[in-house]
Amino acid sequence: MKLIVVGGVAGGMSAAARARRLDENAEIIVLERGEHVSFANCGLPYFVGGEIAAEADLLVQTPESLRNSLNLDVRTNHDVTAVDAAAKVVHVQTPHGTATLAYDALILAPGARAVRPPIPGVDSPVVTTLRTVGDAVALREHVLGGARRAVVLGAGFIGLEAAEALRMRGLEVDVVELADHVLPPLEAEMASLVRDELGRLGITVHDGVAAVSIDSDTGTDTGTGHAATVVLADGSRLPADIVVLSVGVTPDTAPFAAAGVACERGAIVVDEHGATSIDGIWAVGDATVCTDAVTGLRRPVALAGPANRAGRLVADAVLRPAKARPMPAPVGTAIVRIGDLAAAMTGANRRSLEAAGIGYQTVHLHPNSHAGYFPGAQAIHLLMHIRVTDGLILGAQAVGADGVDKRIDVLATAIRTHLTAADLMDLDLAYAPPYGSAKDPVNLAGMIAENVVDGTVTVWQADRLAEVASSAAVLDVRSAQEYATGHVRDALLVPHTEIRERLDEITAFAAGRPLRVYCESGMRSYLATRILAAAGLDVAHLSGGMSTLRARLGDAGGLLVVPDAEPAHA
Amino acid sequence: MKLIVVGGVAGGMSAAARARRLDENAEIIVLERGEHVSFANCGLPYFVGGEIAAEADLLVQTPESLRNSLNLDVRTNHDVTAVDAAAKVVHVQTPHGTATLAYDALILAPGARAVRPPIPGVDSPVVTTLRTVGDAVALREHVLGGARRAVVLGAGFIGLEAAEALRMRGLEVDVVELADHVLPPLEAEMASLVRDELGRLGITVHDGVAAVSIDSDTGTDTGTGHAATVVLADGSRLPADIVVLSVGVTPDTAPFAAAGVACERGAIVVDEHGATSIDGIWAVGDATVCTDAVTGLRRPVALAGPANRAGRLVADAVLRPAKARPMPAPVGTAIVRIGDLAAAMTGANRRSLEAAGIGYQTVHLHPNSHAGYFPGAQAIHLLMHIRVTDGLILGAQAVGADGVDKRIDVLATAIRTHLTAADLMDLDLAYAPPYGSAKDPVNLAGMIAENVVDGTVTVWQADRLAEVASSAAVLDVRSAQEYATGHVRDALLVPHTEIRERLDEITAFAAGRPLRVYCESGMRSYLATRILAAAGLDVAHLSGGMSTLRARLGDAGGLLVVPDAEPAHA
Repeated sequence: MKLIVVGGVAGGMSAAARARRLDENAEIIVLERGEHVSFANCGLPYFVGGEIAAEADLLVQTPESLRNSLNLDVRTNHDVTAVDAAAKVVHVQTPHGTATLAYDALILAPGARAVRPPIPGVDSPVVTTLRTVGDAVALREHVLGGARRAVVLGAGFIGLEAAEALRMRGLEVDVVELADHVLPPLEAEMASLVRDELGRLGITVHDGVAAVSIDSDTGTDTGTGHAATVVLADGSRLPADIVVLSVGVTPDTAPFAAAGVACERGAIVVDEHGATSIDGIWAVGDATVCTDAVTGLRRPVALAGPANRAGRLVADAVLRPAKARPMPAPVGTAIVRIGDLAAAMTGANRRSLEAAGIGYQTVHLHPNSHAGYFPGAQAIHLLMHIRVTDGLILGAQAVGADGVDKRIDVLATAIRTHLTAADLMDLDLAYAPPYGSAKDPVNLAGMIAENVVDGTVTVWQADRLAEVASSAAVLDVRSAQEYATGHVRDALLVPHTEIRERLDEITAFAAGRPLRVYCESGMRSYLATRILAAAGLDVAHLSGGMSTLRARLGDAGGLLVVPDAEPAHA
Repeated sequence: MKLIVVGGVAGGMSAAARARRLDENAEIIVLERGEHVSFANCGLPYFVGGEIAAEADLLVQTPESLRNSLNLDVRTNHDVTAVDAAAKVVHVQTPHGTATLAYDALILAPGARAVRPPIPGVDSPVVTTLRTVGDAVALREHVLGGARRAVVLGAGFIGLEAAEALRMRGLEVDVVELADHVLPPLEAEMASLVRDELGRLGITVHDGVAAVSIDSDTGTDTGTGHAATVVLADGSRLPADIVVLSVGVTPDTAPFAAAGVACERGAIVVDEHGATSIDGIWAVGDATVCTDAVTGLRRPVALAGPANRAGRLVADAVLRPAKARPMPAPVGTAIVRIGDLAAAMTGANRRSLEAAGIGYQTVHLHPNSHAGYFPGAQAIHLLMHIRVTDGLILGAQAVGADGVDKRIDVLATAIRTHLTAADLMDLDLAYAPPYGSAKDPVNLAGMIAENVVDGTVTVWQADRLAEVASSAAVLDVRSAQEYATGHVRDALLVPHTEIRERLDEITAFAAGRPLRVYCESGMRSYLATRILAAAGLDVAHLSGGMSTLRARLGDAGGLLVVPDAEPAHA
């Protein structure tokens, strides 16, 4: 068996290593276009920022270590330029000329390359991407060489990691994002928390705006003293010594498509075992298209974890097909550290659920990371999308300083295993005061969602505030002190402990209108809603309370007021 | 509806609160024998140790706060002495005399009380338990009043938390445990890591030994200057100003058993909705007996999390039976912090699997808590028991400084949802370098276990070392430097990168015997095993490597040697 693997990072190297463990006698050649294999691509921003000190730390494996331990023939700076599937050969550009290599099985793991948007100046030397060890080394040298200002184009995961790294080095950093908010896959009420943290770090965010040109400044001619100016559609001019381009990736598949491997929007189409449309050719990783586990939509998933795990399964499919397991549909779990926060997501978001036409409801909560009475507890801001018909968990997102990764991992497992909100209530999670609560945030998310699914309560969502404010009677059940810090315009203040004795007053205030209740986090308003529903009122409470509302709407276009700023209330 | 709940902590108060949320008009009385309701029972050790500063922090709710928010009639210092199930009344000892209260529904959540072993002196005033706020306040006062030495009887969860707390206050602390090792539900190779940490904290452990008496010393008469001496079966005499008794709990059910409520070894028997044998009476929490989710064995589960969650379900069963979900069988997830470590477990352990007659295999691994190239990565020592027939996950345990709670929570979810080892490989967990690895420890556990289940490799367990050493050829595939720090007697050293070129030498060394391979963690020996199996040898590798072997066996009765201490090897 002669196996050729194209691409020596993540999925490709995972496949090659597994292949050797399955077949001691196979000839296994790994062809990597770049200078390094099996490097820590997810570590590059931290190398730029200085948390990872040595370049050597990024090189998890080398061709030598892979030959020694796994007897792999790893060839760097080898670029596959063409495949002849009928002859079962690949044509390779090597440092010493061209070569033709024969294969019995070919695994394609070419990955993706950075998208270069058609902006004037995008090819200027001041513009870099952060995809390779070479990129990271050059960027670090540039930073240590005195760069003072950076502009990051794209506020996705890598863009924000790069922005944080550059800021840690003391640069002034602007981040530009075309979408409405940073980390576009995150919901708005989560992304705003990340934006606040970026602000705290001293990073300036420009969202909802396009970069229209990158003007290279020739020395001090323009007077900025910086190498370039990034011009935005709103007229802003951002001086920059460095521009980091991170607006997305696109599958790097041209020679394979040319060889007849079926692709869909540039990504290689594979079956559940990674087989392509051509016999003897498999593919894995960022260059392939997958079927989303929740929505069933087809999409590429450019994540290291799924690629690494799938690489192993593809090797199984090639070398022992009878025992090979199908590759799992991706759930799309992801996490990023920003300053003191983690922001994480799993499963579908509103946009993908709407694209797939799946009816959903969203619940929000802000539980403590561990028992509130134990020192160091911090709020986790958590949302969960559930299917309205049965409470199936469709997606979840969380932002917080502690315990976010744990809850998202449990919820990712719950989504993979098709749990419902009610099932979450029953999970036996590890509890001691330093780690969680007797009702863990995940249990609570299940309880809150199940109350919605089974009709115990009705919730309203923050984005309906304008409609609610114009048509409903709004009841604030927080304390007078909380009310005084800002409340929904015209909301009646009745602290939740006074609901029972002031029912008549509330009924009169409602005057036949539906009652829409809120508190700070959603817990007291839930208790109030149960009392008011028992009194026969049409009542719903705000999912996630004012905490979520502020995160989603900011000042809500004047619908949030502080008492001094409004006419005295009757 | 007149609902009486007996017991105002965890399960009881959870039931009462949910009952109110379901029925605004019910009369709900909570009778609590103690002074406090809804207090932070899991926080008591941390209050003693000083991490929780104020007594008020332990009082999560008070009768007043519960009346205000939930209109509950909470009566502390009310002890239910008898139940007349036919008349549907309870007899109560109140601070002001006796009372008789009628109910429509009765929920029993009396909890468990500390076991007092029949040791002479156990009733001395120097002996305390740590079950109530009063216990904790008294213990803290004693500590702050100058106590210098403490003996903790019982090295379970609460015993160790108490020992750590007392040690944090500067006391000399001895812990006495009758079982072979601390934290008896933990496997030996995990418990030894906890014991090492206790030693690092300066806590002395006496395991596998009984306390036979607690001799009260009258002042300085005995010359120790301490209030008592704890005498052990091995003759040790441990001076003590304080003795904390924490050798287990027993359901506190006498009046209910006397009323005819069916019990099993003292614990109340309930159906899946918490109903007891008597109509109109339900029960929940530490006083009840459950069916274990993995083994099907019946056992009480004295854990706060399941009690809190079950309380809510019992209220559903009482107040809206048509919608009530069955209570989940407990998975038995638990965690404890000891010094810088967390020790956690979920599902079944060897003892319960053997009691249930379930055939299992165990895999061990020592992955990093997050990407090794990112600063701060620390080893997680993880084991997983799987069913031999199909890889069903039966139990898991982990000890480490970081990320233990997360992995155990994911595995607890996997056990609840009946995942197999192979399923674990597919979990999409949140990966960025500060949080995990592209192949998360949970994914790795699945890969390692699946290799065992499908026969890709065979493992041997550390406890078979004596048998292996006498009948097999043992191969050490670590580096010469590692070998020199200690190795299995007569093991041949062949670093894993030299296996291929030294196959003949290894075959000659085996001389027809089975080859048993090991390395430090189990990864290199796995690679070696695959090469040797391909060469036709009978080969198995050590689960978890030397790291697990040392943790399980210590010096293995002389089977582990360092080169200087052994005859020169041929």
